[in-house]
Amino acid sequence: MYDVAILGATGAVGVELVSVLESRDFPIRSLRLLASARSAGTSFTFKGETVAVQEVGPCSFEGVDFAFFSAGAARSKEWAPVALESGATVIDNSSAFRMEPRVPLVVPEINSHVLSAGSSLVSVPNCSAIILLMAVAPLRRLGKIERLVVSTYQSASGGGASLMRRLVDETRLALEAIESGQGISAESSGAEPYAFNLFSHNSPVDSSGYNEEELKVVEESRKILEMPDLRINVTCVRVPVLRAHSEAITVEFGSVSRFEGGGGAESLECAARRILSAAPGVRVVDEREGNRFPTPLKASGGDQILVGRIRDDLSHPSAISMFVCGDQLRKGAALNAVQIAEELVGLRRQPAAQIATPS
Amino acid sequence: MYDVAILGATGAVGVELVSVLESRDFPIRSLRLLASARSAGTSFTFKGETVAVQEVGPCSFEGVDFAFFSAGAARSKEWAPVALESGATVIDNSSAFRMEPRVPLVVPEINSHVLSAGSSLVSVPNCSAIILLMAVAPLRRLGKIERLVVSTYQSASGGGASLMRRLVDETRLALEAIESGQGISAESSGAEPYAFNLFSHNSPVDSSGYNEEELKVVEESRKILEMPDLRINVTCVRVPVLRAHSEAITVEFGSVSRFEGGGGAESLECAARRILSAAPGVRVVDEREGNRFPTPLKASGGDQILVGRIRDDLSHPSAISMFVCGDQLRKGAALNAVQIAEELVGLRRQPAAQIATPS
Repeated sequence: MYDVAILGATGAVGVELVSVLESRDFPIRSLRLLASARSAGTSFTFKGETVAVQEVGPCSFEGVDFAFFSAGAARSKEWAPVALESGATVIDNSSAFRMEPRVPLVVPEINSHVLSAGSSLVSVPNCSAIILLMAVAPLRRLGKIERLVVSTYQSASGGGASLMRRLVDETRLALEAIESGQGISAESSGAEPYAFNLFSHNSPVDSSGYNEEELKVVEESRKILEMPDLRINVTCVRVPVLRAHSEAITVEFGSVSRFEGGGGAESLECAARRILSAAPGVRVVDEREGNRFPTPLKASGGDQILVGRIRDDLSHPSAISMFVCGDQLRKGAALNAVQIAEELVGLRRQPAAQIATPS
Repeated sequence: MYDVAILGATGAVGVELVSVLESRDFPIRSLRLLASARSAGTSFTFKGETVAVQEVGPCSFEGVDFAFFSAGAARSKEWAPVALESGATVIDNSSAFRMEPRVPLVVPEINSHVLSAGSSLVSVPNCSAIILLMAVAPLRRLGKIERLVVSTYQSASGGGASLMRRLVDETRLALEAIESGQGISAESSGAEPYAFNLFSHNSPVDSSGYNEEELKVVEESRKILEMPDLRINVTCVRVPVLRAHSEAITVEFGSVSRFEGGGGAESLECAARRILSAAPGVRVVDEREGNRFPTPLKASGGDQILVGRIRDDLSHPSAISMFVCGDQLRKGAALNAVQIAEELVGLRRQPAAQIATPS
């Protein structure tokens, strides 16, 4: 049994972490909920008991085995050294350490092999990267992936609970404006209006013209797949959806290994569908006749990444297109973090002889 | 001065046609508003006068010079022969005749050269194709386009006034459910839930795995650009936005002609931005520093196609990515139809010697 802490417990991912730890019955002895002074004092119910949120401080991580961080990169940089010094294993949902070469960046279904019993700081990848790779990584069995072209349809939850509230509040006002015969204003001095609107992901854009979110998807995908030269084109867009991301993905292969089915070589599309149907954490939702494909609502609250619209790319000799939806707060963040902890628990339970040397 | 009829006057595009004809001061002598029996009896104000909607019938097109059709493909097939027989020029917003080789399929900024004074039946392309090509066609000056990869974010208006109402009504119910602490249901026996959700375009999917909307974009783009072998990958998705479509577009070039600027060869990105800034009907909205790019709300109600996020594709040696928004009801339908009529008016005013032989 383990002593567990959550930093950022009152945020959208923090709330989901509490729920996932409970529903997966993670072996918890004690749960410490931590947040900034502003959020301290609220409380959660965990396994029938009330747990109050405490202000994070220098002694918060004493005796903690696993510390889940979901309070943003700045807080992670501030508190990870403290937690590590206290002997806790830090599983960090922020971007703070993801690209550090010695920090494992893990989607357990894809690259749990980079974890060892001694891993003390592990990063959870960007949510869009996780959802992308859950559908793409299994397809490496089809051949060498040359290039990915990705357009995202990202939900409000990626911007935290405050952006989810803003979407609901602005939508209420927009409906009132529509009912009174007014239009919805397109202009705003600050953020783009969100009700019945969408906008390019509002992270900083660098001189390449790509924004930070897009560059995270590029760099993190390369690290997770261990393909440092993988070519990726990505456009990240925020849509007025509450908590699941969608992505239109095209995977271009170089040479393709054709799988032999009963009657000869299998088409790329059929092989992709077969592989994805058996991929862990993935559910194929691809009913052409009834026009039933993944939607963010179908993915919301669930653990699986939904994949559909699987088809040969009409414009390329060996490429597959698909449409993918996944809950941004669960597999995109909280669930993936808890799965990492579960992997570490498993590694640490193995007899000492089997434990790999810490990296 | 011309006698003008609108078939489907009470639909979302029909209402916009009345507005565009008035605001562009199209030279109208009389306006006849036509619809099915169900919609007849309502009335519109046009240039200060009340015009009643009449039920369409065999004599509806007598004396009509221009008949705008926006009542769907079945109604177009039924009434176009009648209108043509009456001597009217038919400008059809439906898919009924678009791919017939002898019917011009026209975006005036791109291929008005296929019109002649004698054109009696002209098709308006699919809205997603128009918005795509307004941004892509000018880039042919950069080099030979080899392939387009497109993901759409299509608004409710593409499904007509009824889908716009459904989005508003379902959103109102969803807000009530959220406020009362219930979730939004993902399941539905009929159409996918639309509030705070998105879904693959619900047109029939054929054995290639592409839906009808996507195949329209492919086929119509090839016809308009006169590039029968152009390779196009497209994914069409409906998003909870009211009346402007957005598209993430990557244009891959074969050989690229570098333009000579003051200091030497211009980058592909800079050349694309320069060309698009001067393209008719296009407005570049591309402020990286302030994170201001096209949004559907900015495009709504306007005549221009907004283009931004113009950047070199990081994953291809000679490709450009961009994000484009355009009002589906205006440039995607009504405005484009009226522009076609304006072109024909211009051609017919030319001295007889200059009039090309009808095709």
